[in-house]
Amino acid sequence: MDLQTYLQDKRGLVEQAMADLMPGNGKLPPELDRHLEAMRYSLFAGGKRVRPILCLASCEAVGGAISHALPAAVALECIHTYSLIHDDLPAMDDDELRRGKPTSHMLYGEAGAILAGDGLLTLAFELLSGKLPADIEPGAQLGIINIIARAAGSLGMVGGQAMDIVSEGKEIDVITLREIHSRKTGALISAAVQSGAVIGGATPEQFSSLTTYGEKIGLAFQIVDDLLNVEGTAEQLGKAAGSDADRNKATYPALYGLERTRQLAEESVAEALDALAHFDEYSAPLRRLASYIISRSK
Amino acid sequence: MDLQTYLQDKRGLVEQAMADLMPGNGKLPPELDRHLEAMRYSLFAGGKRVRPILCLASCEAVGGAISHALPAAVALECIHTYSLIHDDLPAMDDDELRRGKPTSHMLYGEAGAILAGDGLLTLAFELLSGKLPADIEPGAQLGIINIIARAAGSLGMVGGQAMDIVSEGKEIDVITLREIHSRKTGALISAAVQSGAVIGGATPEQFSSLTTYGEKIGLAFQIVDDLLNVEGTAEQLGKAAGSDADRNKATYPALYGLERTRQLAEESVAEALDALAHFDEYSAPLRRLASYIISRSK
Repeated sequence: MDLQTYLQDKRGLVEQAMADLMPGNGKLPPELDRHLEAMRYSLFAGGKRVRPILCLASCEAVGGAISHALPAAVALECIHTYSLIHDDLPAMDDDELRRGKPTSHMLYGEAGAILAGDGLLTLAFELLSGKLPADIEPGAQLGIINIIARAAGSLGMVGGQAMDIVSEGKEIDVITLREIHSRKTGALISAAVQSGAVIGGATPEQFSSLTTYGEKIGLAFQIVDDLLNVEGTAEQLGKAAGSDADRNKATYPALYGLERTRQLAEESVAEALDALAHFDEYSAPLRRLASYIISRSK
Repeated sequence: MDLQTYLQDKRGLVEQAMADLMPGNGKLPPELDRHLEAMRYSLFAGGKRVRPILCLASCEAVGGAISHALPAAVALECIHTYSLIHDDLPAMDDDELRRGKPTSHMLYGEAGAILAGDGLLTLAFELLSGKLPADIEPGAQLGIINIIARAAGSLGMVGGQAMDIVSEGKEIDVITLREIHSRKTGALISAAVQSGAVIGGATPEQFSSLTTYGEKIGLAFQIVDDLLNVEGTAEQLGKAAGSDADRNKATYPALYGLERTRQLAEESVAEALDALAHFDEYSAPLRRLASYIISRSK
């Protein structure tokens, strides 16, 4: 398989499903237009669609049909997008650009951006609780919602952001750094892999292996993000390079140095691949995705 | 039945369940303390617990056990509380007081308040998708999540707030006013009644009647809120009276005058009671709650 073709193909599927599943096709009051436009703006402002593609690839890895995982994949991207909108707010990271484009609050104002985020988060749970394309057991569907809600919530992604904010400007140790990263980024990436596995009908052993895979690539992902922030150009990131260091944020390179940080990312990807040792050829995309996460830094 | 005793009793049950279901009982990193404290602060800052009590009373009205509805009742209060935290933000209504106490952002900063709201919204869906106390069919549980997500989302509560904000300072007509109110307040109140009905095992006919009941008291509730805003003292509301008028917000009294507004609220409550015509004595609390909503204004 060619990874670029795979990514392009799956991105296309996810973005088509996003367009299909967004509200606003019916007759609605015009005062809602701008709100729905703000949701769509951030959802379609680019992005690699890493979480939805991991969900599809995980479903595929256990022999499931990719199309069955599309609503969950879209829900994951809604949650990721809402987190970016809220993180970019003046009260949070105060970023004016994201992927080279104005952030939500620059175009829709702070109130508009807060509500666009709230709307996307809530939409995710509407999609996850709605009719899915396949005959998934309602109990399993509830399980997916619970996995994603935990990963996105106060002990997961939201909690990681809260920890990040109270730690700003303070010296923090390695354990805290890993805690923040694992909640802020790792949790939702793991949940993407886990929810794809449930939709694809994973056995308990497969689910457990894919959970490990998800945790390991989640960690690698965040380490590489830190590396990109130090090494990357503003063009690659779509925002000012080095901006985390400017704000005195705890990062892997700051704690370990560049060389050891690169090593840590590679070790984590190797562990992710180990977790797939007993999977058949349908896990090829998941394997390639693990390496892709590292290659982003080169 | 004595309504005050009923309300006090049910408030106690709901608040105990809230305390039990809030995260943070396990061993957690200290950097999360402030975030979890912010969530708890707003959740326990008082409030009449109207939505959770409606959920319990609706469950009871169709013969269900009140305890079965407690997690859903808590989830509804989490969603209501998150909406208040975000609505109070400087970028939105910019309120410094709520129920006589400092609003979330006054104590925890804007970032802390945004994240407390995000955390509460997500927690609601974690609770709704988790194990419920009764043997509710997983399919019915999914239905409840879907009802609440739609009511809370971009075509419901969040959409109503978005419409309210774009309409501020503009002349709006009666149809738009009703649209805003029905989304912003009515939708979640209806969802509270509907989810209690599903948990209690309502027949389709009962569900339909309770849906009407929910819509009518939702409307009455918002009309009375408008009245309180004009007539009320700062003490009653916990915020400056007349503050909506100051901001040139569309309200029922502004459009209809006080007398006709009071009439409209009473008509709406009467229609809510009509919808319960075929219910037995277990619907007594729901009936009394409808009148209670009106009596708040006196």
